[in-house]
Amino acid sequence: MEDLLDQLIRLPGIGRRSAERIVFWLLNQPAPQAEDLAGAIVQLKKGLKFCQACNNLSEQDVCLICSDPGRDNTILCIVEEPKDLLAIERTGTYRGHYHVLLGTISPAEGKGPEDLKIRHLLKRLDSSKIREVVIATDPDAEGETTALYLAQELKNTGVQVSRIGLGIPIGSSLEYADLSTLSISMASRRQME
Amino acid sequence: MEDLLDQLIRLPGIGRRSAERIVFWLLNQPAPQAEDLAGAIVQLKKGLKFCQACNNLSEQDVCLICSDPGRDNTILCIVEEPKDLLAIERTGTYRGHYHVLLGTISPAEGKGPEDLKIRHLLKRLDSSKIREVVIATDPDAEGETTALYLAQELKNTGVQVSRIGLGIPIGSSLEYADLSTLSISMASRRQME
Repeated sequence: MEDLLDQLIRLPGIGRRSAERIVFWLLNQPAPQAEDLAGAIVQLKKGLKFCQACNNLSEQDVCLICSDPGRDNTILCIVEEPKDLLAIERTGTYRGHYHVLLGTISPAEGKGPEDLKIRHLLKRLDSSKIREVVIATDPDAEGETTALYLAQELKNTGVQVSRIGLGIPIGSSLEYADLSTLSISMASRRQME
Repeated sequence: MEDLLDQLIRLPGIGRRSAERIVFWLLNQPAPQAEDLAGAIVQLKKGLKFCQACNNLSEQDVCLICSDPGRDNTILCIVEEPKDLLAIERTGTYRGHYHVLLGTISPAEGKGPEDLKIRHLLKRLDSSKIREVVIATDPDAEGETTALYLAQELKNTGVQVSRIGLGIPIGSSLEYADLSTLSISMASRRQME
């Protein structure tokens, strides 16, 4: 029991108290249910790999998005991590493909462009119908550096390079926006139809 | 003393405890200092009026921004309230003029377009060199309604109508963006140079 407690406490967001509650809950469950959970944890690592096309997490060699013929194969959205892809998918408004970099350029952590799936991206663009690349890295220091680097790399490939909209979030107000957000919001104004 | 306490408690963000602290602080000040504060409060209401040109708060008939010959008089930024104008001024990146609506369209509060300084705006556009109007109302329900109404009204005036950039705030990440912000961020992507 102490061993399981120690393991649970290492999970993010779980302290000693929550760990104890989980252990006692498991003790009250029938054995097969506890085994299902254990099995699912093992399967997660066994069953999941990176999609060969886009580096998303996938149970197949090629993920469900990459193998969906109904999606627009002329537009490619570049994200840092699989969780960013999931966030955009949840909106239900984007119907193109993705490319997951699996990181950002981060001099502080000693990570350069060669540590990301950028060569993979350039090769992919060579042999595809992609006309537009949307860079959806985070608008923080690492994400912006990565976006600028990518824009530079993609300059001579002939595809249109765009950046997701940065500015005031929906439902918020100018009053609460920080200076850099407000500045970019004025600078990136767009024509209304 | 009770009278002043009651008055102070009515100020936003000031409770009984803070009010008492202010009263005792005032008791410890020399009389002229307390009179200066009282005078400043009276002057605020006496001395401030709405600028005749843009409806900003001003000590003169025409505010310092409207009377500054160094500002770009071909671009006009439309905001809801004087505090929004102040927020944009703090960024130090906008050098055009403003027009303050003094409110938003809000059916819930019974406020329609005629309650805002919109007729004033249209008259102003008639006799000016303005080529672009940037609508900087908040991206909430009232602000968006007002923005759409204005875009409609300005359609046939010949000026270019644009909207401030909406999307992910600087320093934030996709992961924490709500669905509508993420959707508009994808929809309002812009070409990188």
